[in-house]
Amino acid sequence: MDDRNGGDTDPNEAVATAVDQARLREDLERNGGFGAVPGEGHGRTVLAGTDANREAREYFRGRLEDAGLTVEVDSVGNVVGRWAPPGATGAPVAAGSHLDSVPEGGIFDGPLGVYAALEAVRAMRDAGVDPARPVEVVSFTEEEGARFAPGGLLGSSVATGDRSVEDALALADGDGVTLEAALEGIGFRGEGRLDAAEWDAWLELHVEQHTVLESRGVPAGVVTDVTGITHCEATVEGEANHAGSTPMDGRRDALCAAAEFVTDVERAANERTEVDPAAVGTVGSLDVSPNATNVVPGRVEMGVDVRSVERESMDHLVGAARDSLDRLAERRDVETDLTRGFDLHPTPMAERCRGALHDGADAAGLEAIDLHSGAAHDSMHVANVTDAGMLFAPSRDGISHNPREWTDWADCANATRVLAGGLTRLAE
Amino acid sequence: MDDRNGGDTDPNEAVATAVDQARLREDLERNGGFGAVPGEGHGRTVLAGTDANREAREYFRGRLEDAGLTVEVDSVGNVVGRWAPPGATGAPVAAGSHLDSVPEGGIFDGPLGVYAALEAVRAMRDAGVDPARPVEVVSFTEEEGARFAPGGLLGSSVATGDRSVEDALALADGDGVTLEAALEGIGFRGEGRLDAAEWDAWLELHVEQHTVLESRGVPAGVVTDVTGITHCEATVEGEANHAGSTPMDGRRDALCAAAEFVTDVERAANERTEVDPAAVGTVGSLDVSPNATNVVPGRVEMGVDVRSVERESMDHLVGAARDSLDRLAERRDVETDLTRGFDLHPTPMAERCRGALHDGADAAGLEAIDLHSGAAHDSMHVANVTDAGMLFAPSRDGISHNPREWTDWADCANATRVLAGGLTRLAE
Repeated sequence: MDDRNGGDTDPNEAVATAVDQARLREDLERNGGFGAVPGEGHGRTVLAGTDANREAREYFRGRLEDAGLTVEVDSVGNVVGRWAPPGATGAPVAAGSHLDSVPEGGIFDGPLGVYAALEAVRAMRDAGVDPARPVEVVSFTEEEGARFAPGGLLGSSVATGDRSVEDALALADGDGVTLEAALEGIGFRGEGRLDAAEWDAWLELHVEQHTVLESRGVPAGVVTDVTGITHCEATVEGEANHAGSTPMDGRRDALCAAAEFVTDVERAANERTEVDPAAVGTVGSLDVSPNATNVVPGRVEMGVDVRSVERESMDHLVGAARDSLDRLAERRDVETDLTRGFDLHPTPMAERCRGALHDGADAAGLEAIDLHSGAAHDSMHVANVTDAGMLFAPSRDGISHNPREWTDWADCANATRVLAGGLTRLAE
Repeated sequence: MDDRNGGDTDPNEAVATAVDQARLREDLERNGGFGAVPGEGHGRTVLAGTDANREAREYFRGRLEDAGLTVEVDSVGNVVGRWAPPGATGAPVAAGSHLDSVPEGGIFDGPLGVYAALEAVRAMRDAGVDPARPVEVVSFTEEEGARFAPGGLLGSSVATGDRSVEDALALADGDGVTLEAALEGIGFRGEGRLDAAEWDAWLELHVEQHTVLESRGVPAGVVTDVTGITHCEATVEGEANHAGSTPMDGRRDALCAAAEFVTDVERAANERTEVDPAAVGTVGSLDVSPNATNVVPGRVEMGVDVRSVERESMDHLVGAARDSLDRLAERRDVETDLTRGFDLHPTPMAERCRGALHDGADAAGLEAIDLHSGAAHDSMHVANVTDAGMLFAPSRDGISHNPREWTDWADCANATRVLAGGLTRLAE
């Protein structure tokens, strides 16, 4: 640390003071213009490998270079800006998030974490922090999974060795365009593989996408655990029949059975919250065949989402869904099936990262509370290979994946102060 | 009656004997080839005003002329073949059905009634019947409503004055092609308006589309009433939210509410059958928005089909559906709406037509039972302007609107014998 801070100032406090809301806002607004969607709110569509994504990446690379960071792009398009002042040795600490969006998503989901990480490094430099470790600012490719990888978290899955570079590059969108071709097309198919296991620690700031912070009037939430997620496909096969000529007692109505299933899933999740408030169960999609007013439904396919920070709750809810289908098959003479596909275990965040973020909040004079994340994030993958922490900023009305997604600029800056303090602590 | 029957033979019996199964079958098989769909079963797609429809109409016109009938085509393409031997005066009796199909429909739904009517006239001539009234063989345009008129029953609605010629001709398909242009394109835009009110009586033979006749081993069903039909659109508006970050107690899940509605409609219909076995209630279509596994459903739209031969039952079931939505709106904090759109009253068939059909069955030595029609038919419209009767032939496994729709040729011939006897009795 140089003497610009004086001898008795906590470097975290100096960093918090050095966070520049206007500079952060300008980056986020500029980034929000790429793929901007006309209409109400602040929408953008930035799918991986598109022109809008190229523009966002080029602007980001330029801003990393403006701040004096060394930029590298790996084979799957993950972008890393590295700040390694003399004396910063050993394993780096890293922070970031993603720049891609869902179709007509908001301007904060992802970019806040990326540009807050960059602003944290700029603030550390401005405050004269002299870190013991290099600091890396990261943007992962295709976090949302809106184009190539339905499950999302693509770039982090490669950076953590969960998926090979080859498998990732071969993923194709609905038109058969591969990730490799798309990245080459926009000039962001780099070399090598970003390896998250080489990081000493990782932090990600993200909008909360819910109302806990807003309703309590707290500017920062330190994530204790990222929820586990299971997606199940449930099907009910009855018999399609004429709605007029088929009497009530001669029916095998797939939708009536599916309707009971939907309420069974809801009831099981409600009951589970008595012992595990983080447990949720949702039938989010339901498709009827043939889906005509005058035909008794013959088949229903449903998508079930089950989450909790406790694996036992997830298994319990999936079991309850299976039991419901078994009962319905017997009672309603229908065939049922449940396939448990996508399955991510709950991920606790590292104690030392949570502590560093709380230290960052203290240094900035901001309140922070503990909460869990009900959404998946790249940090779930990173936590498998190194110490990871996550921080939430308030989301207005909890809205996200929507042009109405909003976080006040002051809240963005405050959360960035907490992140910067945490990063400074970890880089000491 | 001429002396070919001898003096002591019931003309109905002679007509029943004269019905020629092979001749009927040839017509139905030839007709089934127009718009034939490859694959299993006997499928055909014959939408009004298409090339396949032109082929079917041209073949039909030719067969009417072969049988010595005078053919007329009205402004909306209804085709009538008239048999008016010397001495046949006064208001005609008529019989028929329709030649159009649903997409990938079967070869009996419609054509059986058309060609059975023609076969009945041929049998009457062969048997030397000398009717007191002219007999008309009719094919109505667009009964299924698969191209121009979503509610179907188009040609009969014009023939009964329920809809004007102008309104009918102006109906357009999904590509903006009007019925008028389509009929002109295939050469079946005729003159004037077929007026069903001028008929003394009307009979229609149709496949049952259910299993009552098959399960009882009876070859003919005399329809007592054609069901009334109401279609309602029900909507539930909740709030779409992230399935992970929205806790169970913070949700306004439109699908959970809709699921309760589906089972409420089923329960109300089941209960109603205790006093009215013909009552049915079906939620046939259900569409979820945004319909993604990981999003709490925000909106659900449903199509509800309610039928009975008793108007009171229909009103009761629609009322139960409304009550259900009101309860759900209150308990689940969602907005609900129910619109009663399409609405046809139950239609009793005329006593004298039912009697004539039973006489026809007796003369042919065939058993006939009474049953109601749960499906809509052109006869519903015709019954509003003259005496109408309907006859059902067995449907294998009750399947219709499907290439697997099937009625054995012997069953086709037997039902035609009953129809021919009934027509002979009405034309006396």
